[in-house]
Amino acid sequence: MGMRRGTNLPRMGDFNQSVILESIRRSGSGLSRTELVGVTGLSAQTVTNITRRLLTDHLIEEAGRTINGPGKPRVTLRLIAESRYSIGVHLDPSVMTFVLLDLAGTVVRRLTTRTSSADPRRIVDAMAATIEALIEGAGIDRSRIAGVGVAAPGPLDAERGTVIDPPKLHGWHRVPLQAVLAEATGLEITLEKDTTAAAVGELWTSNGSPDDSFVFVYLGTGIGAAVARDGDVIRGSSRNLGEIGHIIVDPDGPSCACGLRGCVEVVCTPQAIVEQAEQAGVFPDDRETGDAEVVDVRLAQLCERAADGDAAAERVLRQAAANLAVLVAVLTNMLDVDRVVLGGPFWSRLSEVYLRELPARLDRLSATRTIRTIPVDGTVMGDDVGALGAACVVLDSVLTPRTSALLLEH
Amino acid sequence: MGMRRGTNLPRMGDFNQSVILESIRRSGSGLSRTELVGVTGLSAQTVTNITRRLLTDHLIEEAGRTINGPGKPRVTLRLIAESRYSIGVHLDPSVMTFVLLDLAGTVVRRLTTRTSSADPRRIVDAMAATIEALIEGAGIDRSRIAGVGVAAPGPLDAERGTVIDPPKLHGWHRVPLQAVLAEATGLEITLEKDTTAAAVGELWTSNGSPDDSFVFVYLGTGIGAAVARDGDVIRGSSRNLGEIGHIIVDPDGPSCACGLRGCVEVVCTPQAIVEQAEQAGVFPDDRETGDAEVVDVRLAQLCERAADGDAAAERVLRQAAANLAVLVAVLTNMLDVDRVVLGGPFWSRLSEVYLRELPARLDRLSATRTIRTIPVDGTVMGDDVGALGAACVVLDSVLTPRTSALLLEH
Repeated sequence: MGMRRGTNLPRMGDFNQSVILESIRRSGSGLSRTELVGVTGLSAQTVTNITRRLLTDHLIEEAGRTINGPGKPRVTLRLIAESRYSIGVHLDPSVMTFVLLDLAGTVVRRLTTRTSSADPRRIVDAMAATIEALIEGAGIDRSRIAGVGVAAPGPLDAERGTVIDPPKLHGWHRVPLQAVLAEATGLEITLEKDTTAAAVGELWTSNGSPDDSFVFVYLGTGIGAAVARDGDVIRGSSRNLGEIGHIIVDPDGPSCACGLRGCVEVVCTPQAIVEQAEQAGVFPDDRETGDAEVVDVRLAQLCERAADGDAAAERVLRQAAANLAVLVAVLTNMLDVDRVVLGGPFWSRLSEVYLRELPARLDRLSATRTIRTIPVDGTVMGDDVGALGAACVVLDSVLTPRTSALLLEH
Repeated sequence: MGMRRGTNLPRMGDFNQSVILESIRRSGSGLSRTELVGVTGLSAQTVTNITRRLLTDHLIEEAGRTINGPGKPRVTLRLIAESRYSIGVHLDPSVMTFVLLDLAGTVVRRLTTRTSSADPRRIVDAMAATIEALIEGAGIDRSRIAGVGVAAPGPLDAERGTVIDPPKLHGWHRVPLQAVLAEATGLEITLEKDTTAAAVGELWTSNGSPDDSFVFVYLGTGIGAAVARDGDVIRGSSRNLGEIGHIIVDPDGPSCACGLRGCVEVVCTPQAIVEQAEQAGVFPDDRETGDAEVVDVRLAQLCERAADGDAAAERVLRQAAANLAVLVAVLTNMLDVDRVVLGGPFWSRLSEVYLRELPARLDRLSATRTIRTIPVDGTVMGDDVGALGAACVVLDSVLTPRTSALLLEH
């Protein structure tokens, strides 16, 4: 039988240091020591000791004095954004996106490459080469790279550091991606589900409260979810939380490979929506099954036609929003979170109709509708959510204070 | 914008005290100071100081010395079970169950009363009277009662301390249960969903590891879920986590009041299973709709007949298990927990068929089946899971260490 562990002074010191660094980072323009005492609840002596250490480590700097009435002027302490960097990679069947972020979360450099080969080993070599190009192009010291986050479609085998069954990238489940890429680059690699990475990115960039609680519904080639609670993303015990592809949303929907009918995977995905549009006569039914590029083009056209007043296109998208509302209601009723965030590579195209249709439908299906309304937001990140989120995963593991880190290890 | 709070020495001391008290409680037969150092990771000095305080407060006692090789004999420290008590109440449309637990979680006394009136105020008066009878009958000092936990069907309005829409107890949503019962008894009242209470009870009595992670599926008049992660039950932001009644499990199932078809509420509940048995000819179709007592009797008969080899009864129950497997797979794929626990008032009758049928079906529907198998267990508590869980909620809030309690308040 395992026992719960206690805590001690060194753990407490590390935690309080993270709290101060995060407060300075989130403030944007910086905070004085007196302000830090106010926001963290720590004593003036503790704040003085910790900020001295952060100044010595060149993570923060003094950025001017403010005279505010009588007494000593206040010194503003500000994050040194160039003190650490992280790299984010989004592994996608067609395009790979690479971003370099500084400690403040600003995108310093961005690259994309087409996924030209189907051979996983050659793709990994191309990834390593692009990461080198990113670092060299930015002209920064390699020792300042905290690590590389790789966002990939789930589920993952976290122990082996590989992707289990990525769509359209056959053979990937045999590649120990994390180990191979670590060897090729000499950098620390973190493999994360694209959905989880997106939620980490949302927390990092949304300036939400430290007890922010949401479900992130990720609209990619597949549909996934991630959950944040008390300002922290919950990953689940095998790091695979949020596999929602086989939740039934339409009892009249098409058959699914899982043996059931009307699952998210055959109703809510871009491919399914395009098929619904083809059946509704919006497009000729002449596409080859599984043609990813045509799906991409047709989904964009569908959204454009609906925006231009095409009634059939509009009906298809409204029904798609209604189907997604059933899924989102299952998630919010189960998870009891404060809000819903929608995002992912296909989000910007669908956002107009979805943000118009979803909230009222969700409210009707909500188990707690008599006591509160659950707001639906679009992500604060753009279409690069996977790569940005992956880079934030690295910054997050370095910088975010976690009470679990207070516990003594076995 | 809110900021994360730091921690300090007094917070640390309180947390470590909870860790030591929990370790002693969980050990059963007690632990020596040296053993406490080993299991908690705390220093010998800290353990000595904290156990001195717990001895002074009469929460623990010295329970004999063990000579173990040369050196000073070890003194075993043991919980004083009679130092604190808690009361658990299960609010149910037909029977109310009351239990009195000591600090070790042992049932000292148990009472049940029939819910004779439909008038909420009179039921609350009866509850208060039964609580008095429980305390008097046990002959314990009122000052040792840590509080009363009330388990009720969700969803709840936690802010008003009331039940939103309990089945068959109309008018309850207007009763501020928590406040009225607190006034009537003079005791601290905690209102909790029956499903959440059951999961807290499971953690308390299962002797699981401090990072136990499970979904508890509660089989009552309705079906609900609760989630434990890192050894703690997650309640959600309105304390209503686990409302799963409208997840679709059978696309061919009957229509539901929510507007969809084949939801848990019309497929997996005891009433739905009895209806399926009636349709399969196991029983004559002569029951009045919504007759709760007949449902109860017929479900018991159905399970007995299946156990006696009745093929039609067996088929109905196997299909019921198959439907529940679809629900459980939705939950485990979404939540990524280590195991599934089944329990609730109807569990003991269904356990044989469900434990036989569920695991293989769940495995087939699991998103992570290639990397692990998710075990399915029956609860360690009996049919009193609601009342026992409610009493554990009180003990838990008093005794269980939480890292969140380390943070300084605003």
